[in-house]
Amino acid sequence: MSAWTRKDLLGIEGLEPAEIREILDTAQTMKEISTREIKKVPVLRGKTVVNLFFEASTRTRVSFEIAEKRLSADSVNVSTSGSSVSKGETLLDTARNLEAMRPDIIVVRHGSPGTPHLLARRLACSVINAGDGAHEHPTQALLDAFTIRERLGRVAGLTVGIFGDIAHSRVARSNIHALSKLGARVLVGGPPTMMPPGIEALGAQIVPRLEEMLPQLDVLIVLRIQLERQGGQLFPSAREYATLFGLGRERLRLGRPELLVMHPGPINRGLEIAPEVADGVSSLILDQVTNGVAVRMAVLYLLSGAHRGATAADAVRGAA
Amino acid sequence: MSAWTRKDLLGIEGLEPAEIREILDTAQTMKEISTREIKKVPVLRGKTVVNLFFEASTRTRVSFEIAEKRLSADSVNVSTSGSSVSKGETLLDTARNLEAMRPDIIVVRHGSPGTPHLLARRLACSVINAGDGAHEHPTQALLDAFTIRERLGRVAGLTVGIFGDIAHSRVARSNIHALSKLGARVLVGGPPTMMPPGIEALGAQIVPRLEEMLPQLDVLIVLRIQLERQGGQLFPSAREYATLFGLGRERLRLGRPELLVMHPGPINRGLEIAPEVADGVSSLILDQVTNGVAVRMAVLYLLSGAHRGATAADAVRGAA
Amino acid sequence: MSAWTRKDLLGIEGLEPAEIREILDTAQTMKEISTREIKKVPVLRGKTVVNLFFEASTRTRVSFEIAEKRLSADSVNVSTSGSSVSKGETLLDTARNLEAMRPDIIVVRHGSPGTPHLLARRLACSVINAGDGAHEHPTQALLDAFTIRERLGRVAGLTVGIFGDIAHSRVARSNIHALSKLGARVLVGGPPTMMPPGIEALGAQIVPRLEEMLPQLDVLIVLRIQLERQGGQLFPSAREYATLFGLGRERLRLGRPELLVMHPGPINRGLEIAPEVADGVSSLILDQVTNGVAVRMAVLYLLSGAHRGATAADAVRGAA
Repeated sequence: MSAWTRKDLLGIEGLEPAEIREILDTAQTMKEISTREIKKVPVLRGKTVVNLFFEASTRTRVSFEIAEKRLSADSVNVSTSGSSVSKGETLLDTARNLEAMRPDIIVVRHGSPGTPHLLARRLACSVINAGDGAHEHPTQALLDAFTIRERLGRVAGLTVGIFGDIAHSRVARSNIHALSKLGARVLVGGPPTMMPPGIEALGAQIVPRLEEMLPQLDVLIVLRIQLERQGGQLFPSAREYATLFGLGRERLRLGRPELLVMHPGPINRGLEIAPEVADGVSSLILDQVTNGVAVRMAVLYLLSGAHRGATAADAVRGAA
Repeated sequence: MSAWTRKDLLGIEGLEPAEIREILDTAQTMKEISTREIKKVPVLRGKTVVNLFFEASTRTRVSFEIAEKRLSADSVNVSTSGSSVSKGETLLDTARNLEAMRPDIIVVRHGSPGTPHLLARRLACSVINAGDGAHEHPTQALLDAFTIRERLGRVAGLTVGIFGDIAHSRVARSNIHALSKLGARVLVGGPPTMMPPGIEALGAQIVPRLEEMLPQLDVLIVLRIQLERQGGQLFPSAREYATLFGLGRERLRLGRPELLVMHPGPINRGLEIAPEVADGVSSLILDQVTNGVAVRMAVLYLLSGAHRGATAADAVRGAA
Repeated sequence: MSAWTRKDLLGIEGLEPAEIREILDTAQTMKEISTREIKKVPVLRGKTVVNLFFEASTRTRVSFEIAEKRLSADSVNVSTSGSSVSKGETLLDTARNLEAMRPDIIVVRHGSPGTPHLLARRLACSVINAGDGAHEHPTQALLDAFTIRERLGRVAGLTVGIFGDIAHSRVARSNIHALSKLGARVLVGGPPTMMPPGIEALGAQIVPRLEEMLPQLDVLIVLRIQLERQGGQLFPSAREYATLFGLGRERLRLGRPELLVMHPGPINRGLEIAPEVADGVSSLILDQVTNGVAVRMAVLYLLSGAHRGATAADAVRGAA
């Protein structure tokens, strides 16, 4: 049986550590499903999940869609291109209209912080935040925590660095919350123009330079440089970023030999991370992607209410 | 058992009143499915439905897709962007090619009136018109009639007004047919530039001014102003439209207290309808959306032939 | 039981004639499924298939999607618009990320020759080439061979002509391989600017003029003129192409009365083929489309490993 009672997953900030642990434990059960000959369980059969993406995404949308289908949900995609949004309908009207069709869960990505929270307050169905502006990206932080715990056996007591454009990163914010709540020490760093004021208030310690941060770390999360957004404004050039701040083989040697490297993807090879690091033995990048499906299955499962009356292990036992 | 024998649903104009009633009765049975814990029945299992949309749409496409999935059909979306249409293939060739893949039903939306009729004549599979230019949008009129009947117990004997851009509205045309056939008195009105010549021939009575129409009505259907199409040509400005023709709280008071307000959506808040009216107690706008799924399930079910040999109530009894 | 052991279907060039025959035999079994009342078998239940299209496509994507759904696979579409590719991720990273989500099969279309081969070498899951630049389009050639064999009882000993833009056609290349391996004599022709050097090395004989080729043929495959690509560069005008090289009723009379005409679609009516020929009794164009679903079901089935331990006939016997 599960203690989960929330209707929505909007961010990590409001979660109790026990809730985070429950999602991670559930994800562990879910992960095995994707290794089966028949990768499908009937847990969400007859449930409707709408993936409402106002920003382009491959990995997150596909990860959710695969998670939904492996749980036997009916999955419907709505993206801005070709939607009513181009006809001037307000966001809330779009969401209310979708809700009137009786979905069980809406997964929403939007460029404006707080959008999922607005929808969650107004809609009876469950809402999952798949990224809201520079605010939160909770399933990313959950899959990162899951990946660390899976590899190192725990999160508590570890030192995890997050390096890059902290100011504009929802991944950084959600990870600072998740890792702190699970008992890790979190260091954040990056170019001075990319460090937000007051970030320590979230529970992270600023260590601006990668060289200084590296020797202290068990895990380093390298953030993506959003070339398409800030290029040329926050730093002089891609080449200069790579030279001054990128994680190459040389800089990696400043860390302990067992240091693990993560990245939320998509990576810019040769910019924030060198190919030999991204593809090297320290890299957990593809584990993160694999675990993303398991974590999203767990979140969908818990929000659907299917966990009431049965343990996750029981629920996934039956074939689809 | 059902009397339905048609292969296609192309418009309301050609339907008998008894056929309309059969769809509405079937929709009533279907509506309950979306309130179940497991919102799915196996009625269209192993059937292939292609949603062929040549115009952007969120609500109609998603409504059909959810209806298809709740009936366990295999649903395939084809929209113009990224389709062969950009390679210069004719419409009929696109449709014939799709048909050669053995779908059971093609749902088509197209900007040219008569497109679904053309396809229906040439294809062996069933065709559902999801909107053809300014001609017909039969499932919208059916869900409107369903919503009125559900709330007021009947359509016959009611007076229903349709106000706005009558000339360019497929919703208006389909509704005039449906409501007249079901025995309602239909009044139509709108700005002079938006009233088509000869509309009385369809069975509606022209009452140009909203102020004059309102006191007579049981139900008012406010049409969407297609800002992206006619803006600046048929009326001076959005502000002026709202002032002269929009349904605000003041104007609403000219109607009887129990007047019901409907709108096919997406609404332009503050243009043809004020937010406090759209969200007020008179509004059936979200009921319309909910009923849209039920009506489309009914149409898909009847066209699929699944109704032969079993009543709808029997068909939906089994779980998916 | 089946002898199929390959992980991928990348092209016809590397296949043994026995392998081609196995696909065609399996397709014959699959074809019957699409004529059933319930067009679905549980053969790929719980398998995930990703359709990764870097080029616009209706017919091929829909054909694969329908094939996947009729086999009960979970089908996920990824197209370039709205994907990470626009964020500058490399092709291989996109594919590796998708693979980390544990799909069983990736169907890929890409403008660069060799893309599916690159992915197949690096990914553990199966890869199906759905068209790679001007290189290969193996499922098209297989459905063409299937269609010829179905109509004429055999491919060996027939003379098949391929006419049009041979140089830029992946359909031509795959068909030359497939038809030659199955024992047909293959003639190729077209405007001089569209004939690639060294094409005879693939096993085809050059007969440049359609007039000269026609009397020798059992089957003529007319290639699509890619107006959107070469228009105005390789030939003077559409009208001139039609006059000099198009297959009209007059030119068709130069062939034997029982000559069969095929085209991979989408057709340009009145350009490379006249409407009365495309729609005439000699035309197999829509049979090709129907057979495309069956051939893709066969390929998906063989690559999934579902054929091990059961014959295709046994596998498709059970209802979904």
